[in-house]
Amino acid sequence: MHRDRFYTLTASCPDQVGIIARVTGFIAEHKGWILESSFHADEASETQGVRYFMRIEVKAESLPFELDEFRSRFQPLAEELQLDWRINDSAVKKRVVVLVSKQEHCLYDLLARWQSKELDIEIAGVISNHDDFRGFVEWHGIPFHHVPVPAEHKAAAYAEVKRLFEHVRGDTMVLARYMQILSPELCAEYPGRILNIHHSFLPSFVGAKPYHQAYTRGVKLIGATCHYVTEELDQGPIIEQDVIRIDHSDSVEDMVRYGKDIEKTVLARGLRYHLEDRVLVHGNKTVVFR
Amino acid sequence: MHRDRFYTLTASCPDQVGIIARVTGFIAEHKGWILESSFHADEASETQGVRYFMRIEVKAESLPFELDEFRSRFQPLAEELQLDWRINDSAVKKRVVVLVSKQEHCLYDLLARWQSKELDIEIAGVISNHDDFRGFVEWHGIPFHHVPVPAEHKAAAYAEVKRLFEHVRGDTMVLARYMQILSPELCAEYPGRILNIHHSFLPSFVGAKPYHQAYTRGVKLIGATCHYVTEELDQGPIIEQDVIRIDHSDSVEDMVRYGKDIEKTVLARGLRYHLEDRVLVHGNKTVVFR
Amino acid sequence: MHRDRFYTLTASCPDQVGIIARVTGFIAEHKGWILESSFHADEASETQGVRYFMRIEVKAESLPFELDEFRSRFQPLAEELQLDWRINDSAVKKRVVVLVSKQEHCLYDLLARWQSKELDIEIAGVISNHDDFRGFVEWHGIPFHHVPVPAEHKAAAYAEVKRLFEHVRGDTMVLARYMQILSPELCAEYPGRILNIHHSFLPSFVGAKPYHQAYTRGVKLIGATCHYVTEELDQGPIIEQDVIRIDHSDSVEDMVRYGKDIEKTVLARGLRYHLEDRVLVHGNKTVVFR
Amino acid sequence: MHRDRFYTLTASCPDQVGIIARVTGFIAEHKGWILESSFHADEASETQGVRYFMRIEVKAESLPFELDEFRSRFQPLAEELQLDWRINDSAVKKRVVVLVSKQEHCLYDLLARWQSKELDIEIAGVISNHDDFRGFVEWHGIPFHHVPVPAEHKAAAYAEVKRLFEHVRGDTMVLARYMQILSPELCAEYPGRILNIHHSFLPSFVGAKPYHQAYTRGVKLIGATCHYVTEELDQGPIIEQDVIRIDHSDSVEDMVRYGKDIEKTVLARGLRYHLEDRVLVHGNKTVVFR
Repeated sequence: MHRDRFYTLTASCPDQVGIIARVTGFIAEHKGWILESSFHADEASETQGVRYFMRIEVKAESLPFELDEFRSRFQPLAEELQLDWRINDSAVKKRVVVLVSKQEHCLYDLLARWQSKELDIEIAGVISNHDDFRGFVEWHGIPFHHVPVPAEHKAAAYAEVKRLFEHVRGDTMVLARYMQILSPELCAEYPGRILNIHHSFLPSFVGAKPYHQAYTRGVKLIGATCHYVTEELDQGPIIEQDVIRIDHSDSVEDMVRYGKDIEKTVLARGLRYHLEDRVLVHGNKTVVFR
Repeated sequence: MHRDRFYTLTASCPDQVGIIARVTGFIAEHKGWILESSFHADEASETQGVRYFMRIEVKAESLPFELDEFRSRFQPLAEELQLDWRINDSAVKKRVVVLVSKQEHCLYDLLARWQSKELDIEIAGVISNHDDFRGFVEWHGIPFHHVPVPAEHKAAAYAEVKRLFEHVRGDTMVLARYMQILSPELCAEYPGRILNIHHSFLPSFVGAKPYHQAYTRGVKLIGATCHYVTEELDQGPIIEQDVIRIDHSDSVEDMVRYGKDIEKTVLARGLRYHLEDRVLVHGNKTVVFR
Repeated sequence: MHRDRFYTLTASCPDQVGIIARVTGFIAEHKGWILESSFHADEASETQGVRYFMRIEVKAESLPFELDEFRSRFQPLAEELQLDWRINDSAVKKRVVVLVSKQEHCLYDLLARWQSKELDIEIAGVISNHDDFRGFVEWHGIPFHHVPVPAEHKAAAYAEVKRLFEHVRGDTMVLARYMQILSPELCAEYPGRILNIHHSFLPSFVGAKPYHQAYTRGVKLIGATCHYVTEELDQGPIIEQDVIRIDHSDSVEDMVRYGKDIEKTVLARGLRYHLEDRVLVHGNKTVVFR
Repeated sequence: MHRDRFYTLTASCPDQVGIIARVTGFIAEHKGWILESSFHADEASETQGVRYFMRIEVKAESLPFELDEFRSRFQPLAEELQLDWRINDSAVKKRVVVLVSKQEHCLYDLLARWQSKELDIEIAGVISNHDDFRGFVEWHGIPFHHVPVPAEHKAAAYAEVKRLFEHVRGDTMVLARYMQILSPELCAEYPGRILNIHHSFLPSFVGAKPYHQAYTRGVKLIGATCHYVTEELDQGPIIEQDVIRIDHSDSVEDMVRYGKDIEKTVLARGLRYHLEDRVLVHGNKTVVFR
């Protein structure tokens, strides 16, 4: 956490000699003060050579120009290195839309973090297929949208979700135990921008009722997984996971209760990494620079 | 979690042959259906022989009489075994008073658990030395009391806390990051009934600013401790603890943020154990029948 | 850990009123001193009513008779309650046969625990499909058997494993990263007596090369599972599991290395529970009275 | 883990603009291929400005010269940046001397890791104040030295430990549950080169019998700490820590048993970080680039 305004540059490119030197050289040349920097060379796969990932925080006031000029000046080097890159300004708050259903644990948790500015974001709206949390959400001064998802009109419902998300210029959509499966179109529309919390330690217990599945299998730990949503259910790139110990005396209800604690923590951690531009997607995996 | 109403008998006594047989024999004699039972023989110390602890849940409807009659019928056996005992009815909700200061994470967390009935209690009131959370608490339909604690009038403030607690017939007082040190008189008044969450892994970092202490010492994990409040600061019987990993890149502010996640989880777990009569105090230690 | 000799009674039966009272009553009647006791009522399933599980440690010298007489005197009550039961004597060391392949971490770990008497067992022999560890094992005074498992003569190899196990009157077989799939016949021969350590957090990553599978999926934690071997690969009742955090910078080789630490710890814990009669199998799940 | 030979450069210096660019620029200029790199800016303290830390792995064969020439060519830049630096060659195995007493768990664990080349080091000798492990150590082809430490001749004993360490040109001394307090002279002689495993979660339970202290305080987790030895007992810079859950039913003996599993894992992790030049000492704290 830095009090001063800073820019976060994230990038990936084919590996070669001198990448760090070139990129940090550009920053140093303009007297840019690097606050934090992380680099990672992924292993070569059968179809691809080594790929290089980086994340660099530069103190905004140390640079003699604003982001727009950074972008245009940096572009030639980025092209030369074949960088897939972006740069964000810590002063521009990310706009998050939260989707919930009838369980409150993740919603309360996110709003507490937002309230205390631990999550320094705009919550541009809460969308739910039920009206239960209207009062709670509106009390916080956040717009609440009740968008039912009837089995026979799912397409229209998701079109409305999309419309609302676009209307508020949302950056990130968070499925905070939304309990609905988004349409493939919606998933495809926002790659790397929709986060879900799945209530199992993936890839175990994909799909419905994972705690029941875990109970039946007799596992000794249960978990939760925060991942990017893709068209394939529960198969997207994993951002964060955690587990908690249970034993034979725990019923499915106990597991649900324990699980909630893991779900909200894992979602909050994954979301934070995402919002701070710490997550770089690589195929179906993630590089997370904590 | 049992859906049916049940009684919870907790007891401790000097160890001898036949305790379980005698106590469960009494229950069986009246056709009492035991849902859950735990027993523990503590080690002898220099000053005391082996002490025996137990906790038994009996399905209420399986017994032919109510709690009052249970109590009077059980009394002779309890005397014979020198039992220190109590029995509670799951249908009678515990009355909890929550004390907070200016941090919201534990408060939001407790209210979410109360809202979803995960914690099946009455929150008889929230007391704070600041007025910040009045709106949030009252929105939930819970009485909020602003009791400032000025340095020069602490005694009066704690007298008011006590008055409010007595007025609502509180069973348990929860210091949910209250940040004030209760008076010794108040601590002594309610032994085993006031729970605190301390933001360190006790006995490390007693007192003020434990995260700063942890940062200075360079530990690789930070923790939180839920304990009963006694007259000696941060020295009471420990109910629950947990830790989370940090590293050299984490500032004190990062540690505070990580710590909050542990604090609220540890407090919620400790409080649950307490409310479900799973905690038996033994000297300055606890037996926790999870 | 008790220094004095004790008997461990484990049992399960259909639930009914008075089981604890009857069983502990029998023990109390003969002045049996209960050191430790655990009880658990499993939930009813579609095909079965509630089943009751128990484990009781009785100080040997407190009883006026030996185990044989205990067994014959207890039999009528056991029949009445339809108990599936056994009782073991802490003075009789369990006889364990360890099967290994070419990785040493579990073998060193088990021998260190045996050497220090942390595991108070007889290691009746080590069997391996390679000859690598002969010197190390024999230096400890433990018989070593090299039983190659060529693809074309697996049946003969497993027959030899069985012969050796029977010859030394083995109680428990431990697959300490044996890397071979036992024949269904061998698995069926010793239900609840063969323990395996699988190098994944089951049910994720069943079968071969689980760390490669985990790497490909991009999970953020890897784990290990100690389970009873059944005819179906990696599907037996789970005794113990644990996980460890990894991240994007960890290669498959790193995961193998981290994994070893979890594997040996989880195997040792699972084996200890088994040897101390803390594990009761219930269908494809376990009750573990820790 | 890299199969190819590489050099590891570690350095710290006062922070200023352009450090990364200058250092990686030097490497890039000579076509050095960076395999892994980590950077960290520590916070300013009252007495010191921001200090910068780095660790860079360069593929050996990518450079056109050997280490000696690297050193002389890099020196001018190092001086300019006021670097406190060193560079090591992965082909040169570190020489480790292990000190043990009568507990085998850490010794077996380290030898298993050495045997499997997980720890790619020379174990230049094992020194013990007891003769118990001579056979085991010598069976592995490692020299064993019995150096008794009688209360009245400690100075002579530590002089002999130092002589042996110097004689084998030891790089690192590992106190693997040595149970003796080294003399202040010996500690001062090898700053940042002697690792100890303390059997508590420091700063809790400094000094003797930490498990007894933990039992008395009634903590719910116990831990272990790997740290550099300094003249002040158990106060040196912490490298690694971990904890394990216990409960009221665990005796001191149980805690000792659980603790061993944590001790050996934490020691092995800390030692690995140290041997891979991942630990940079900063005052009484460490930067650990994992």
